[in-house]
Amino acid sequence: MAGNSFGKLFQLTTYGESHGPALGGIIDGCPSGIKLDLDAIQDELNRRKPGQSSIVTQRKEPDTVKFHSGIFEGVTTGTSIGFIIENTNQKSHDYTHIKDSYRPSHADYVYDKKYGFRDYRGGGRSSARETACRVVAGAIAKQMLSNIEFKAYVSGVGNMKLNKPYTELDLTKIESNIVRCPDTEMASKMETYIKEVRSKGDTVGGIVSCVIKNVPVGLGEPVFDKLHAELGKAMLSINAVKGFEYGSGFEGSAMYGSEHNDAFNTDGTTKTNHSGGIQGGISNGMDIYFNVAFKPVATLIQEYETIDKEGKVVVMHGKGRHDPCVVPRAVPIVEAMAALVIADFYLQNKMYH
Amino acid sequence: MAGNSFGKLFQLTTYGESHGPALGGIIDGCPSGIKLDLDAIQDELNRRKPGQSSIVTQRKEPDTVKFHSGIFEGVTTGTSIGFIIENTNQKSHDYTHIKDSYRPSHADYVYDKKYGFRDYRGGGRSSARETACRVVAGAIAKQMLSNIEFKAYVSGVGNMKLNKPYTELDLTKIESNIVRCPDTEMASKMETYIKEVRSKGDTVGGIVSCVIKNVPVGLGEPVFDKLHAELGKAMLSINAVKGFEYGSGFEGSAMYGSEHNDAFNTDGTTKTNHSGGIQGGISNGMDIYFNVAFKPVATLIQEYETIDKEGKVVVMHGKGRHDPCVVPRAVPIVEAMAALVIADFYLQNKMYH
Amino acid sequence: MAGNSFGKLFQLTTYGESHGPALGGIIDGCPSGIKLDLDAIQDELNRRKPGQSSIVTQRKEPDTVKFHSGIFEGVTTGTSIGFIIENTNQKSHDYTHIKDSYRPSHADYVYDKKYGFRDYRGGGRSSARETACRVVAGAIAKQMLSNIEFKAYVSGVGNMKLNKPYTELDLTKIESNIVRCPDTEMASKMETYIKEVRSKGDTVGGIVSCVIKNVPVGLGEPVFDKLHAELGKAMLSINAVKGFEYGSGFEGSAMYGSEHNDAFNTDGTTKTNHSGGIQGGISNGMDIYFNVAFKPVATLIQEYETIDKEGKVVVMHGKGRHDPCVVPRAVPIVEAMAALVIADFYLQNKMYH
Amino acid sequence: MAGNSFGKLFQLTTYGESHGPALGGIIDGCPSGIKLDLDAIQDELNRRKPGQSSIVTQRKEPDTVKFHSGIFEGVTTGTSIGFIIENTNQKSHDYTHIKDSYRPSHADYVYDKKYGFRDYRGGGRSSARETACRVVAGAIAKQMLSNIEFKAYVSGVGNMKLNKPYTELDLTKIESNIVRCPDTEMASKMETYIKEVRSKGDTVGGIVSCVIKNVPVGLGEPVFDKLHAELGKAMLSINAVKGFEYGSGFEGSAMYGSEHNDAFNTDGTTKTNHSGGIQGGISNGMDIYFNVAFKPVATLIQEYETIDKEGKVVVMHGKGRHDPCVVPRAVPIVEAMAALVIADFYLQNKMYH
Repeated sequence: MAGNSFGKLFQLTTYGESHGPALGGIIDGCPSGIKLDLDAIQDELNRRKPGQSSIVTQRKEPDTVKFHSGIFEGVTTGTSIGFIIENTNQKSHDYTHIKDSYRPSHADYVYDKKYGFRDYRGGGRSSARETACRVVAGAIAKQMLSNIEFKAYVSGVGNMKLNKPYTELDLTKIESNIVRCPDTEMASKMETYIKEVRSKGDTVGGIVSCVIKNVPVGLGEPVFDKLHAELGKAMLSINAVKGFEYGSGFEGSAMYGSEHNDAFNTDGTTKTNHSGGIQGGISNGMDIYFNVAFKPVATLIQEYETIDKEGKVVVMHGKGRHDPCVVPRAVPIVEAMAALVIADFYLQNKMYH
Repeated sequence: MAGNSFGKLFQLTTYGESHGPALGGIIDGCPSGIKLDLDAIQDELNRRKPGQSSIVTQRKEPDTVKFHSGIFEGVTTGTSIGFIIENTNQKSHDYTHIKDSYRPSHADYVYDKKYGFRDYRGGGRSSARETACRVVAGAIAKQMLSNIEFKAYVSGVGNMKLNKPYTELDLTKIESNIVRCPDTEMASKMETYIKEVRSKGDTVGGIVSCVIKNVPVGLGEPVFDKLHAELGKAMLSINAVKGFEYGSGFEGSAMYGSEHNDAFNTDGTTKTNHSGGIQGGISNGMDIYFNVAFKPVATLIQEYETIDKEGKVVVMHGKGRHDPCVVPRAVPIVEAMAALVIADFYLQNKMYH
Repeated sequence: MAGNSFGKLFQLTTYGESHGPALGGIIDGCPSGIKLDLDAIQDELNRRKPGQSSIVTQRKEPDTVKFHSGIFEGVTTGTSIGFIIENTNQKSHDYTHIKDSYRPSHADYVYDKKYGFRDYRGGGRSSARETACRVVAGAIAKQMLSNIEFKAYVSGVGNMKLNKPYTELDLTKIESNIVRCPDTEMASKMETYIKEVRSKGDTVGGIVSCVIKNVPVGLGEPVFDKLHAELGKAMLSINAVKGFEYGSGFEGSAMYGSEHNDAFNTDGTTKTNHSGGIQGGISNGMDIYFNVAFKPVATLIQEYETIDKEGKVVVMHGKGRHDPCVVPRAVPIVEAMAALVIADFYLQNKMYH
Repeated sequence: MAGNSFGKLFQLTTYGESHGPALGGIIDGCPSGIKLDLDAIQDELNRRKPGQSSIVTQRKEPDTVKFHSGIFEGVTTGTSIGFIIENTNQKSHDYTHIKDSYRPSHADYVYDKKYGFRDYRGGGRSSARETACRVVAGAIAKQMLSNIEFKAYVSGVGNMKLNKPYTELDLTKIESNIVRCPDTEMASKMETYIKEVRSKGDTVGGIVSCVIKNVPVGLGEPVFDKLHAELGKAMLSINAVKGFEYGSGFEGSAMYGSEHNDAFNTDGTTKTNHSGGIQGGISNGMDIYFNVAFKPVATLIQEYETIDKEGKVVVMHGKGRHDPCVVPRAVPIVEAMAALVIADFYLQNKMYH
């Protein structure tokens, strides 16, 4: 209720700060009888973990998930699934340089104002480290929805945009490069670009696109819990996200109805898919696709002025090991959140049948 | 739970179809002791109602709200507030032309698949008529949050975009024209354009922008219920919305961290506001601003081919009185949903103090 | 969220005060395709309504339910069901005698303290009048669960207790008398007793027992949302209820395990049913049965001393038309709440299959 | 949502089976800034743990709680509090004797039917072992509500009843004996009795009574979430509970209104307290008191017949280390659940002020 749970029936609740002993989560509402591939869950975590390539943070964390309950002899029991991921890299840093200061465009200031004080060791709860728990839960959701395919990829880094619809891309190439862009030529340029940005101690934003295939017709609960509204909330809840659009998106707002309407084929599919697989908040069986905009990481390896708790100007210098661009590591997070949304609506839809 | 409730503490639950006897809603969680201006609530409804100007649907509905409970001697009592809006314009149309057919880019097909059949008189529950209840609740939320200002306006109609930040606009001009665009010159062009589109029986999309001023620091409940994530869900739950972005939005994804970071002033405000008034999912006291993309209305006054329930091709002709462009009437709906989100987080935040 | 909703998937939200223009409710989550017998719903309301017999309040209210949505051509559509019950008997009483005073064992004092003031016209929201909405929703739940039988009856009035298990009673006789006690001899004594109590301007408490037959195995969601825990909450939420016990109940606490355990038959049924049809919070297919204790109505037609808002002693005299004993009219309310609980768990259980 | 969460704002979600590696929980919604005494939390767990005295199960479990998040430098941070309790006593028993059989009055049969199979090592999720997590969360709730006193005690074991109201007992004596009965003479008799019952391999039920002092006026959210309704649900959700009554309870149903009404003193307190500290579902500032009935433990150290999965009769013999009577160990669980309910309503009530 206080913001650490996601979903109604397939519900994930999480805890954990960047510098505590462990992160963890509970999945409540996972049906019984699902045979889980635990290695596949760990594989998803590995796609998100720090230190996996030369263009992401060089911090080392094994991010090993341990399950405590809800799985018996490899199969879900229908009871709540508890898991933890231990933080092995909580160095006893000296945090005095950030303890009393507010880093620009971080959550330091607002956490202090909201809660009265904050865990000043790194980002605390506001660190994107918590998304590891989302990836665990999303991996289980994916296994529950074994017929449905979730494919996210990087479609933009800074000004470099992949101006092709997903239908013209070879999505099997996503994992062929460390940027996770299916156009390998573009991927190579993006990689070079990210390295340049990092070399300046700067960061850059980007866009993750996602396609969901084989979603059954009927998922989504209007009028408020429309399928795309929950997808939007799910994506916007990921750290650093600034925007969400699905189907024709913002460009669709410039179109005429006569262009935008998706005419039916006789089997109920549509000739075009400006709707992005969702009509009136309910999946129509066509591919669901959407874009998620990420801002540049706020931590720069540069000197800058900011204020401390007393409002005095202080000079700080970013240090540590940070991502110059979050989108390559955001790809599995976007997929995980998409899977959580679909899993939840899949269960909600059962009440009608 | 089944999608007809919005909010956790300040919670709206609604019902009603376009052609039933009445729409209605219940607000549960409105604190006691709020003196309500009932005329101001009706005024908001009037901003949304059909027939209000020459560029919106010419259907006539008085949309009069009647309160049944929760208000005593003009003051909220803390008990649930029930209200209804009677449908006075449910003509006994002949619906045979749409009864067995699926209109393209409408919810006809998915409702039929999800629920087994549908109320075929107009859009039924999928009609944007239900947003009238949102406007009532939003108007009460606004009165509860009397210090906070919600200003939405039209910033795009088709390809015509108001390429100015809200800070360069005179927001007192929004209601000075029927488009609800604060740039009166642009408003005039948009009005002409909408009329042209309508004269062809076509429709066009658009963009509504919104600014929220004077939000206290501290609203939002990370990690999942971030303030902008709920705002995004709220906006995406409005009929015809395809995208949401706040602060720097999609453009922010092309920026460098060194450009995007909002440096602090010594009073905790920031020199720039790419963050859009929200850091880490929590309001920071700066203006919140966001854009909402609306697709073109699907109902065209044109002849078109589609399919019926048996999958046979049929020729239909759109008729009736429809909006050529939804954004002018969407302005109060965007404000209402924004007010509901802020009201809910305002109450949630009380538990920390 | 603020206490006016019941249920998770089959969810009822209500509003309305004793002296407002109308009561009403919204059922969200009722599956589509249920053919409703609207007369049967009104019949349930008639079992609860005032003025129905010589031992209940003589106030006259037709309590006619009107549906506004969610039902099309007599069948549920899967969208939210809105309904209202107009208050036709809101006489413009003079309430000065209670406006500033706190009646003993009423909610006057606590409403004033909690909300800052109260609707002093009768009980306002704290009046049992709100249970009319529960009966409407319960009647729909019963129709959804057409194979399940809900039978409540009066088993105690004051010291007069029906010391027989339900298995020795002829439950078809419940509606044969105005007390709603299936033992007609006892019913006759209870009726005489209630009239005596009323003639003294006094009131008396009682017990309602309830049996639910044909509940499928598997309903209930441990560890917190056990079937009997929700039944208990449902019953305790009814005005004037002081206790709830199921199966062996309080007497079971005095038994040995060797007596209390229910041995299995080879078909999974049990030889005894001390469990009351629920094991570990989940229905086991046997009859569910429970008792609900109601305190005596607080409004006496007698003179008494109490205090006013300033804490001064005042003399008041109860007047009006009140129930001398609530249990006869509570019978349909107990059934309705039981049906809401079972309907909700029935839908929740679908996610496992 | 699937039954493993309790509370709306102060919300506990738990996981864990009797024979898994660990139990755990997440408290979401605990306000920031509460200085926690971690030893006091462990002390509460020690009151519940097995092996603590000669009349409870002799199984040895240290039940040590470890916190993973939400507490920084001994103070709550406002973020979710994660904790685990490792199972150190998961002997690799041979469970073949119960794997395919259904023990009478256990949850074996219903879990199998509901979920398709079960974790057959001991009770799995249906074991009362999960209540350890409730005690941890309840201990934190108690510290948040430092002015409010929660005092539970054993008032009945089998036929031995403590027929005195709590006002005539010395509640400081509760922990002076292993039965946790404040009347030490009665405690001694109960202890002897429990030992006798155990010597026969039998078990016996009992009653736990509880008093809550210093609850502020105004807690509780009618009409459905009445304070006593949530207390009732909380208690009924504890393993083996069969009944709940508060204030005058079942006896109150035999009283006249003229006896039962609680007349006011001029300061708003009442001369009697049949209401049990709650009027209309809202605390009135008087002591809250209630009784909770527990059935006898189902596991007997005796030979008995039951059925297996195929419905064949099998002979089993209870073994292991079980409680002959649960009520002494249930005392801290009842207090914990009471504290969770009050904490939640305490936070909910903040929205009105």
